[in-house]
Amino acid sequence: MPLNIVLIEPEIPNNTGNIGRLALASGSNLHLVKPFGFEINDTRLKRAGLDYWPHVNITYYDSIADFFEINSDKKMAFLSSHGTKDHWNIPFEDDLFLIFGKESVGLPKSITEKNADKLFKIPLYSPHIRSLNLANAVGIVVYEGLKNISHSR
Amino acid sequence: MPLNIVLIEPEIPNNTGNIGRLALASGSNLHLVKPFGFEINDTRLKRAGLDYWPHVNITYYDSIADFFEINSDKKMAFLSSHGTKDHWNIPFEDDLFLIFGKESVGLPKSITEKNADKLFKIPLYSPHIRSLNLANAVGIVVYEGLKNISHSR
Repeated sequence: MPLNIVLIEPEIPNNTGNIGRLALASGSNLHLVKPFGFEINDTRLKRAGLDYWPHVNITYYDSIADFFEINSDKKMAFLSSHGTKDHWNIPFEDDLFLIFGKESVGLPKSITEKNADKLFKIPLYSPHIRSLNLANAVGIVVYEGLKNISHSR
Repeated sequence: MPLNIVLIEPEIPNNTGNIGRLALASGSNLHLVKPFGFEINDTRLKRAGLDYWPHVNITYYDSIADFFEINSDKKMAFLSSHGTKDHWNIPFEDDLFLIFGKESVGLPKSITEKNADKLFKIPLYSPHIRSLNLANAVGIVVYEGLKNISHSR
């Protein structure tokens, strides 16, 4: 069973496009939680030459509440610059849900406070940046997960 | 000693901007080999709000030949979709140079043929894509390297 990439209210279409490519590349499912900062059939998505987009396995949700209700039985890890543990310590396993917040502000407090024990960060070694590009963060975490899962089989 | 990210003739300014951010984030040096597909002080780079750019440790080279002459004593690994080994098998060590080709066509044959034993690919699990976005690829490989180096200390 593959990993699950969850984007909570993504804002920037290029990032979502790139993350769709990462989902395909890594054999992951993509879960997109509305509202988005763009139309999913935005001309920008089309112009970006996303001919692979129809092949991405996507589930859409109308709201954060809907997402958590529908997936209440799933194991999850939450990515946040406020995480206290490094992403290398995520307990990766088949079907794990990896939850990423929106580009501007990350995950809402309502989510981080409820899941404080499952908050992970990608370590940053410079005081001059506060975060990574969202698509870069997804790629780093998902390929770390793939390695863990394939090596534990 | 940090890792070294090398971009051979990068074409897309947003990617180089994101990779500068990844270089800072990961404590890596960035090496940029001309010609570029953009001006390095391109208004797009500025508009993208790259206030961290002056902090990136960058070395510029006028040509591929210059790069290899100046770094002839360095250990290198080459990333290519034609690689036969997965990037998880790169022998990471301090000061390793990680060489990435241009977005449109990857590394030139002159480089891949000379270094066939050091060609690595990021595994892709879908027939619908041929490669990852360049910045995503750099992030995946560099954070894999950081983990290896920090765990071997």
